[in-house]
Amino acid sequence: MRVLLGSGGIGTEERRSKYMDLISDHFRNSENVVFIPLATHDHEGRTARLKESLGPMGAKFHGLNVDRGVEQILAADGVYMGGGNSFLLNRDLHRYGLIDALRDVVKQGIPYLGVSAGSNVACPTMMTTNDMPIVMPSSYEALGIVPFQINPHYYPGKITFFSEGESNDHFGESRRQRISEYHQHESIPVLGLWEGSYVEWDGARGRLIGRARAFFRDSEPMNFEDGALFDGNLALD
Amino acid sequence: MRVLLGSGGIGTEERRSKYMDLISDHFRNSENVVFIPLATHDHEGRTARLKESLGPMGAKFHGLNVDRGVEQILAADGVYMGGGNSFLLNRDLHRYGLIDALRDVVKQGIPYLGVSAGSNVACPTMMTTNDMPIVMPSSYEALGIVPFQINPHYYPGKITFFSEGESNDHFGESRRQRISEYHQHESIPVLGLWEGSYVEWDGARGRLIGRARAFFRDSEPMNFEDGALFDGNLALD
Repeated sequence: MRVLLGSGGIGTEERRSKYMDLISDHFRNSENVVFIPLATHDHEGRTARLKESLGPMGAKFHGLNVDRGVEQILAADGVYMGGGNSFLLNRDLHRYGLIDALRDVVKQGIPYLGVSAGSNVACPTMMTTNDMPIVMPSSYEALGIVPFQINPHYYPGKITFFSEGESNDHFGESRRQRISEYHQHESIPVLGLWEGSYVEWDGARGRLIGRARAFFRDSEPMNFEDGALFDGNLALD
Repeated sequence: MRVLLGSGGIGTEERRSKYMDLISDHFRNSENVVFIPLATHDHEGRTARLKESLGPMGAKFHGLNVDRGVEQILAADGVYMGGGNSFLLNRDLHRYGLIDALRDVVKQGIPYLGVSAGSNVACPTMMTTNDMPIVMPSSYEALGIVPFQINPHYYPGKITFFSEGESNDHFGESRRQRISEYHQHESIPVLGLWEGSYVEWDGARGRLIGRARAFFRDSEPMNFEDGALFDGNLALD
């Protein structure tokens, strides 16, 4: 398997450049990558913006047409699952019957890139999303092409916001607290993936590009360093 | 109706003191308030901590026992819906068949206090929660004792986090962006309620205690000032 999962949040030049390098390498042997824009409302606009942002490379990316989605996926030699809202994305992956086709092509070795919501749905379930439940999916079950959960856009600790020039502490739950609520109900380990970071997964082993913190139901969380190698239980090699 | 909905985030002495004043006044004529701890995992621990935090006033608060929940609600002269995870809370309100009894007693004028997740479920749906979908509720439909949506723990703009003494920009979606995604699918107006703030609702008219920003599907958002009066469409009086 050739899976690359990004956290998103590529809001700096450096991160943008790393993303371009990774995507270019990941799809180096692909000529017909299906881009799945279902995490957003405006499929055509989203696809057009993606193609434009990729420059000349954009020509080999083709937006999914939901009326012939399975056919398109089976004919593709690459899959790019775009970001947006994970509830919307997972609802539509089920609604349009795309789950099995996606699992099949990824199992066959077709490169898969997911970013943000596109990483959430690569996990066993979409339950470690940060998104707002703007629609009801038929199930939280997702593609399960990696055996662990990812919390994208992860950050440690509490946050601060600014208003009228003043800094304000925010008291809402930290990501650690939210993931610990998840672990009161579920046992799958969760990788809190910092923005601008990625996970490569070959079907048995993962490699971290960037920074992450791994959370477990019954043991203490651990920081993973750039280049860390780990298995499907997030046990370090 | 006598409804008081708090955003939560009462992490300062000043906010704590305001909360104690409001709760004391809201339940001034109540002797038997049912406290509903279903947004958390540990019902007994949560109830014990709530009672302790309220000091002598805590004696009139009684934790819900799910085996006789409806009976307890119908016998109560006050309802306090505690915070935690909105998915867990809404799942259990449906699972234990509590929705109709709660709507009935609130309609009869029994004072209702909701905080954070307890405010989310007072809305027509729980769709403007910030929580992680750690369980699947049978429906997003909630109590609907106010006709608008609340986004608790609201903050404007983007956020910053600190790690190893350094400040980092976070690029994930702002609340404004998340609420705008909601409005691509739904038309109910959303009140972004700052932490430490409250809404009073009498069945026809609301009053803001603190700060909020109102978001609409088809018009520009508006800041609401302390004391603002508004109707069920979040139109200012």
